[in-house]
Amino acid sequence: MRHFISVDQLTEKDIYSMLQKAESYRSQKVKDMTSKLFTANLFFEPSTRTKMSFIVAQRKMGFEALDFHEDTSSVRKGESLYDTAKTFEAIGANLLVVRHPDDNWYEALEGKISIPMINAGAGKAEHPTQCMLDLLTIYQEYGRIEGLKIVIVGDIKHSRVAHSNAKALARLGVEVYLCAAPGFEDPELEFPYISIDEAVEICDVVMLLRIQHERHVQKNETNNYLDLYGLTKEREKKMKEKAIILHPAPINRGVEIDTDLVECRRSRIFKQMENGVYVRMAIMSHVLNEWGIMNENFIEKRQKVSSY
Amino acid sequence: MRHFISVDQLTEKDIYSMLQKAESYRSQKVKDMTSKLFTANLFFEPSTRTKMSFIVAQRKMGFEALDFHEDTSSVRKGESLYDTAKTFEAIGANLLVVRHPDDNWYEALEGKISIPMINAGAGKAEHPTQCMLDLLTIYQEYGRIEGLKIVIVGDIKHSRVAHSNAKALARLGVEVYLCAAPGFEDPELEFPYISIDEAVEICDVVMLLRIQHERHVQKNETNNYLDLYGLTKEREKKMKEKAIILHPAPINRGVEIDTDLVECRRSRIFKQMENGVYVRMAIMSHVLNEWGIMNENFIEKRQKVSSY
Amino acid sequence: MRHFISVDQLTEKDIYSMLQKAESYRSQKVKDMTSKLFTANLFFEPSTRTKMSFIVAQRKMGFEALDFHEDTSSVRKGESLYDTAKTFEAIGANLLVVRHPDDNWYEALEGKISIPMINAGAGKAEHPTQCMLDLLTIYQEYGRIEGLKIVIVGDIKHSRVAHSNAKALARLGVEVYLCAAPGFEDPELEFPYISIDEAVEICDVVMLLRIQHERHVQKNETNNYLDLYGLTKEREKKMKEKAIILHPAPINRGVEIDTDLVECRRSRIFKQMENGVYVRMAIMSHVLNEWGIMNENFIEKRQKVSSY
Repeated sequence: MRHFISVDQLTEKDIYSMLQKAESYRSQKVKDMTSKLFTANLFFEPSTRTKMSFIVAQRKMGFEALDFHEDTSSVRKGESLYDTAKTFEAIGANLLVVRHPDDNWYEALEGKISIPMINAGAGKAEHPTQCMLDLLTIYQEYGRIEGLKIVIVGDIKHSRVAHSNAKALARLGVEVYLCAAPGFEDPELEFPYISIDEAVEICDVVMLLRIQHERHVQKNETNNYLDLYGLTKEREKKMKEKAIILHPAPINRGVEIDTDLVECRRSRIFKQMENGVYVRMAIMSHVLNEWGIMNENFIEKRQKVSSY
Repeated sequence: MRHFISVDQLTEKDIYSMLQKAESYRSQKVKDMTSKLFTANLFFEPSTRTKMSFIVAQRKMGFEALDFHEDTSSVRKGESLYDTAKTFEAIGANLLVVRHPDDNWYEALEGKISIPMINAGAGKAEHPTQCMLDLLTIYQEYGRIEGLKIVIVGDIKHSRVAHSNAKALARLGVEVYLCAAPGFEDPELEFPYISIDEAVEICDVVMLLRIQHERHVQKNETNNYLDLYGLTKEREKKMKEKAIILHPAPINRGVEIDTDLVECRRSRIFKQMENGVYVRMAIMSHVLNEWGIMNENFIEKRQKVSSY
Repeated sequence: MRHFISVDQLTEKDIYSMLQKAESYRSQKVKDMTSKLFTANLFFEPSTRTKMSFIVAQRKMGFEALDFHEDTSSVRKGESLYDTAKTFEAIGANLLVVRHPDDNWYEALEGKISIPMINAGAGKAEHPTQCMLDLLTIYQEYGRIEGLKIVIVGDIKHSRVAHSNAKALARLGVEVYLCAAPGFEDPELEFPYISIDEAVEICDVVMLLRIQHERHVQKNETNNYLDLYGLTKEREKKMKEKAIILHPAPINRGVEIDTDLVECRRSRIFKQMENGVYVRMAIMSHVLNEWGIMNENFIEKRQKVSSY
């Protein structure tokens, strides 16, 4: 058999011999599971930073990264997230990283899947790995998080970053402020709203959000947004000496922030991206460790082997 | 030269020195071919299970998996399957895995390509790796295939799974039955047709097919499909004590099968997916072996090296 | 924490412990950079050959290849090439390979990015890695480049291949001729235009270009193109004994070249593709070497480790 086009090409003996071979590969399963970890990245919404930094983190840890593309998958034939996730579990994924437009995508899977899931973005509700990398960036800057004054600025209502961050920052002892254009407030988050002009004067961290054109806002509605609600160069000058600027990106340059400020001395925007890799390594390590799938020694040993 | 933007940046000496370097890489070709195998997965139709399980199988065997995306490839510029396949051969692929809407896609390539091809789905005609994983699942269950009674249920006419399976099962001594709604029968397959109610009572394996909405059927035509022709909970109760349910997936829950039966005790649907990885390892190993590209010792050695 | 869905799941202690873990991964950065190189392939236009041969080249050299898909990236949310490239730099890419529809895409990045960039195609302006593989193919054939007569045939005006090649060939001492249908001439390239009939008789290399339907030409305009301006079988017979045919592909069979000539004895079209892998290895090696990111010993050592 030079090419495998049809089972007709195989003799009965061939077939059984191949079934036996397959069974022998299967019996090595447990061994393989410990020696090679497969991570599946299931992104049902566009992503550059989150997806790619997960992949870099996975490769640095020596894991295989399975790259799922909704457009060329059976999702096109109507397959649900549940069936897609169970499929990856069945074919050997040891970890699922999922971004999905539903706020509670994981509820359909909890208790029904035997491998860990990591939330890489859930609708407008949560983006916890972004929150962790923001925390790391703040921690690197101030050596602490408690006691800082931090304002989250922008489309609070529709931002999963705002929701994850406001709660976590408050819990860590941060004085959290919100700042939003009319219609962007979220009544469910009980933190004081202040103006952008007040925010820049009192806060240690100005955490900008992206205007999410693709979710709800018409481009023309943002015409005067920068002047009215965004971080202009004038406002940046009024920030505290050591205060820093964060933004989860992608950035709408000239909308929520003046384009010249994106790489100014206060900006930690690209630092956040770099931190995203290390935080995601820590998160994957933590979760896999809890499942007993790997431990710290395992990673160190693996890194040793994969370096020259 | 800090960035490579134009050949203008290179001196004449640079150019010749780089050509020589390229030639030296080229002369290592034979050595590289034995040390690193490249598999190219050319899917011209959507796929989750088949494509991803091929990739998992390839990575488990230590192969490089090249991931081709029709949408971002030169197919967009009108390039044919033949020229695409020859391109992958030219750049160093050692194995092609192809899914294509044409029933006979491989005919254009046979005898004109110097690397093995594996059929990952050919139009409505063949899906032999699915057939092999179905055989493995049945074999695991009964320890044999010969003498079993197996019914293939659903859209027989348009199903490549039905075509591959019916022939192979019959050859292995199975009593094959078909069960189809009006219009779904295939006059070319000469096996007895029975009703779904008779099928569940006499068969050891109930092999369901997916209604292929994307190929031909309007969604509204399937409104009463489950009750009339599908596997309802009532029908499942009438199945033989040890009888099992197979489905190649993706599943139209509530159309060809009641959603509660997808993970019932008889269902081997996710088991089939898992088996897909091992069967595809066996198939790739078998084919590469015949071409003298690798042998069993090679795989074992490779697996040893890639584990820690 | 079995799944990581929200930061709410983490205790304060957990959070700080994970931040510390992330910092420890970060401190290994320099070591990791030398032990694992990440290449990012940013293709903003369709590609099979160039992209896939870069990936094969990268994997052969032991590099990680990050596969960016414009359609599922934040480019969908309006992110620019600049911000995309800076993002990949931030998350750890050591090399960018970029194809972009802008003739001068790299100008926005030069001096603002701390990692090397390789031009994998710039609008209608430059395609230098294609040029290098063409040079290698010619060099393999004649053992020299200087003194040859080479004609570039086709849509000169819109071809980045023509622009890169004409300049480089002339600099290496080639007698360069151009041959174009009316409207396809480029007044900026100062080389003599000859007819296709004259070209085949006097040239050592006939370098065909693709009619770029997707850029500007209506399909129906090319109806008589082959007879009037293309390489027909009659014209091929008039070529010099040792003369060869090149084409960057994808090929419009029956438009710029008779389909039977694509794999004729003179054609080096698939050889060019193969050479593309080795030339790109040489280019990446050259550039990374200049940045001090790797040296020759490094590659050899890496290849040794990654082979069995």
